[in-house]
Amino acid sequence: MSETAQLASEIRAGQRRALARGITLVESTRADHRVAAVELLEILRKDAPKQALRIGLSGTPGVGKSTFTEALGMMLIGKGLKVAVLAVDPSSTLSGGSILGDKTRMDRLSREANAFIRPSPSRTVLGGVARRTREAIALCEGAGFDVILIETVGVGQSETMVADMADVFVLLLAPAGGDELQGVKRGIMEIADLILVNKADGELKSQAMRTCADYAGALRLMRKRPQDPGDFPKAMPVSAVTSEGLEKAWGEIETLVNWRRAEGFWSQNRARQSEIWFEDEIRQAVLARLDADAGIKALRKTLQARVKSGEISPERAAEQVMDALRG
Amino acid sequence: MSETAQLASEIRAGQRRALARGITLVESTRADHRVAAVELLEILRKDAPKQALRIGLSGTPGVGKSTFTEALGMMLIGKGLKVAVLAVDPSSTLSGGSILGDKTRMDRLSREANAFIRPSPSRTVLGGVARRTREAIALCEGAGFDVILIETVGVGQSETMVADMADVFVLLLAPAGGDELQGVKRGIMEIADLILVNKADGELKSQAMRTCADYAGALRLMRKRPQDPGDFPKAMPVSAVTSEGLEKAWGEIETLVNWRRAEGFWSQNRARQSEIWFEDEIRQAVLARLDADAGIKALRKTLQARVKSGEISPERAAEQVMDALRG
Repeated sequence: MSETAQLASEIRAGQRRALARGITLVESTRADHRVAAVELLEILRKDAPKQALRIGLSGTPGVGKSTFTEALGMMLIGKGLKVAVLAVDPSSTLSGGSILGDKTRMDRLSREANAFIRPSPSRTVLGGVARRTREAIALCEGAGFDVILIETVGVGQSETMVADMADVFVLLLAPAGGDELQGVKRGIMEIADLILVNKADGELKSQAMRTCADYAGALRLMRKRPQDPGDFPKAMPVSAVTSEGLEKAWGEIETLVNWRRAEGFWSQNRARQSEIWFEDEIRQAVLARLDADAGIKALRKTLQARVKSGEISPERAAEQVMDALRG
Repeated sequence: MSETAQLASEIRAGQRRALARGITLVESTRADHRVAAVELLEILRKDAPKQALRIGLSGTPGVGKSTFTEALGMMLIGKGLKVAVLAVDPSSTLSGGSILGDKTRMDRLSREANAFIRPSPSRTVLGGVARRTREAIALCEGAGFDVILIETVGVGQSETMVADMADVFVLLLAPAGGDELQGVKRGIMEIADLILVNKADGELKSQAMRTCADYAGALRLMRKRPQDPGDFPKAMPVSAVTSEGLEKAWGEIETLVNWRRAEGFWSQNRARQSEIWFEDEIRQAVLARLDADAGIKALRKTLQARVKSGEISPERAAEQVMDALRG
């Protein structure tokens, strides 16, 4: 058995360390690692593992996302489910930091045998984060996880990206004054399947209920989407601290998902996502090839100096690179 | 004189309609338009027009960005300056909508002879928006504008993108409770040169002052950047409605800019930006060429169907496209 086939069978057997090694492999930029990664993904996909439920989860910093994720994860593990948590943090490109960087923020969950937590890959481009995350998802599916939570922070493009990887997209919000409703971007409201207003406990409870009603009202004003049954998307209060509302929220997710499966929207969405992944994979591969070409690299370096000095325009310099690629 | 040279001289003469046509040209995806666009940019750059002051401006929806831009723009026009306003809205990729879509939101400014307002190009990828915006900036510089305001909404990547096009980056924020400070992403604080807390008027005035003090405190805790004189970055209150604080904010921008010019940071930053533009231009051109290849297009279509049906993995299908590109 090849080394990759060996790794695949260990992942399929549910060995968490093998899964972690597999994710490290798909995250690598080395060419030989890439060959092995594509092979690994193919083996795991070929056996048609059962499909996990992929839940995209977004929330701005301070909304209590880690606490919520841990509470939801623990509840699902209590139901006998295997739960993986993956993080997508495009800002780590800039700061080198990463959400879930500190696993101790999910102390209880990280100690569960049926849980797997993976921080966001950092110091890479957004396109690279997308590729790695969706491949990590495929590996977690291959490892037999039932639920995969894909966490992201509330910054524009990363939410769309995560929604394009998920079966269900959940938006976690904090209680807020009515005026702040407009702060949630319309584009994000449009991709949410469920809005959960967190911190519906103690002093903030009534404010959370009001915020929830506001969002419910806003959701009702939005255009109906074919993939939604009756009263979806919904807004509901939850408390990550007391776990109140968590069971109900999970029930809603199950209702939504069962309906989508029955009506064909689940598989339709997955097919559409495969298409997006394929197109994105091509783009990433073309750019990676560009970076790997030694002759082009030398030309870019020379031109870079001329561009910096203002001797040649960036557009004209780029044209020269394109000419060299053609020649 | 070629048609493009003619257009260039009209733009240089300050004809706003010619400038608008020029921007439409750089926004076009047609190959012949692209040739003309590169030529146009080269002509305008060659004459080494005076450098405009490029101000990046970001603020979340509801912060009063349009009102602020109009107030600042009118004040600058009152000083005899020519002002261009360009908008960058990555969410328009999703929604088709666009900030400044409605020019009437800057009713007074749009009627000024020394103002030029251009909405965000919509329905395109973020990379495309960046390319078009920086080329629009180059055209506005060629047209002799003194100040170019580049507006964006507060969504992650677009702010970094705009900061990479600007000489100065201004963050416009609303008065808020102390708890919400953490809602402003650290990465954004790190690129801000000036934080303006808007709505410092009427009932919100004292809250704005407190917010301002909070941000000033947060800024003091951050790592000192070489491109900042003494007490920069700063946080200040302004009111777009009463125009209070606007003169002072402008004075701060001038102080900062003059210092950076004198110390060499201005030209250093511009050189760095040219380099970024060059690299990005290459990436965009490579991707555009991929899309233009008829044979590859046909192969992608065939593979797409197989990917959707699950017959082949997205990664393996992408490999086949790369093989065809090599062949």
